[in-house]
Amino acid sequence: MKTVESPHDMQRICGNLRLAGETIGLVPTMGAFHEGHLSLMRAARQACSQVAASLFVNPTQFGRGEDLTNYPRTFEQDAALAEQVGVDYLFAPTEGAMYPNGYETYVEVERLTKVLCGVARPIHFRGVTTIVTKLFNIVRPHKAFFGQKDAQQTVVIRKMVDDLNMDVEIVELPIVREPDGLAMSSRNQYLSPEEREEAVVLYRSLEEARRLIDGGERDAKRIISTIERVIRTASHAEVDYIEVVDSSTLQPLDALNGETLIALAVRIGSARLIDNIKIKV
Amino acid sequence: MKTVESPHDMQRICGNLRLAGETIGLVPTMGAFHEGHLSLMRAARQACSQVAASLFVNPTQFGRGEDLTNYPRTFEQDAALAEQVGVDYLFAPTEGAMYPNGYETYVEVERLTKVLCGVARPIHFRGVTTIVTKLFNIVRPHKAFFGQKDAQQTVVIRKMVDDLNMDVEIVELPIVREPDGLAMSSRNQYLSPEEREEAVVLYRSLEEARRLIDGGERDAKRIISTIERVIRTASHAEVDYIEVVDSSTLQPLDALNGETLIALAVRIGSARLIDNIKIKV
Repeated sequence: MKTVESPHDMQRICGNLRLAGETIGLVPTMGAFHEGHLSLMRAARQACSQVAASLFVNPTQFGRGEDLTNYPRTFEQDAALAEQVGVDYLFAPTEGAMYPNGYETYVEVERLTKVLCGVARPIHFRGVTTIVTKLFNIVRPHKAFFGQKDAQQTVVIRKMVDDLNMDVEIVELPIVREPDGLAMSSRNQYLSPEEREEAVVLYRSLEEARRLIDGGERDAKRIISTIERVIRTASHAEVDYIEVVDSSTLQPLDALNGETLIALAVRIGSARLIDNIKIKV
Repeated sequence: MKTVESPHDMQRICGNLRLAGETIGLVPTMGAFHEGHLSLMRAARQACSQVAASLFVNPTQFGRGEDLTNYPRTFEQDAALAEQVGVDYLFAPTEGAMYPNGYETYVEVERLTKVLCGVARPIHFRGVTTIVTKLFNIVRPHKAFFGQKDAQQTVVIRKMVDDLNMDVEIVELPIVREPDGLAMSSRNQYLSPEEREEAVVLYRSLEEARRLIDGGERDAKRIISTIERVIRTASHAEVDYIEVVDSSTLQPLDALNGETLIALAVRIGSARLIDNIKIKV
């Protein structure tokens, strides 16, 4: 595995790979790798002849008062894990190289970013679409791999790719969970042991919703109140949102119909955790 | 010359050209070709093995009350001219193909678009950077050619290219002028014969500024008032702005220093005309 720091070098390397007929898979990450990230890299390894992973804690997707400074940074361990799963190029640029002084260009998806996580995090998705555009322009991947845990992110990125005619296939892979069901996240590290135990309510509440729906429930309000009841059993949990939306428009549904995304965000201690399930009825 | 309407077809064609080792030059236009456009196509023909021109009157760069509906559309004549100067692919998509229902993604350069033409046309450059991003993603040119008449546009596009790591070289070519000095523009067609005669004051005022500077003048205020005095000799002319700015930051200068852009916008009848000169002192 080759580690590349300069955007210009990475662009040149990937341009040559493309001209040589290679198929490039990109896994964009902010590091602190867990099995979720590694599953994306393994999928890229299967699907593409060359695998690039990017490791960059992107400042423009963090709002004021969010966890940019504390976000876990474990470069040596990440590099070793990436190499183990077969990454060919680890692109790890500096902040100054990605956002030099005077930087002022942003890519924005207007409506899909105003709902769900976009309410509490108004500049988050603008940062995501901007950095992903930059990474796509540097790496020029044939396929890019994202995890379903950030379900809204995938919807937003797919919309950007369609709207801006980007020539890349977006691949979404399932959420990877801890043995007790908690979705893997670099932010789980922020939880105290007690909070970590309680955090399983996110998964349990979604499983409870799934059971209701399997039993025939279609009413969004009743599903949401069931989820809320389960989450309230955790004394440190504070609901940010619980929503039942169409999985491609992200618009709220009164009754389940077609592919539905049930998504939630919950604050537990200093961590803001998200989870979701998709259900086709 | 091949005319291509579908963005998807154009992307496939250009992708294959790139893989085959061709060098692609792109001339983005809104049609109504004059010698200004043709000079860009000839330069692309010299510099690249394959030349694509796009012809699309881009609705997102027109504000409310601007001339989107009246903008000249002369497709047959444009196609003949493009073929004469050696364009290989004329990309002429429909509005519905470029901005399908539900379109909602925009690229924005924040500061450089707030000055000069950005004051009277607040959404103009967002439309320009968005359509140019789309065209770059469809055509994937090695070089793209723009005219100096839209000097701010080139500065904004260069900033976007740098900030978003777009792998394309931006080439700017000199303003092409009518025999009396008026900068060629599709919007000159809006002028009545009397207005057309008066419109030469834009050029004359800039030439007067050049003479002053050649004679040693460095004070921006005195240069601006000279320009204004010349333009006031035209009874139908109404100044939108006259500015003396740094040619890369577009920030106003008190005294000329380095490469200076002297830019102006003037309304004559129903036309809003722009012109500029660059002077290195």
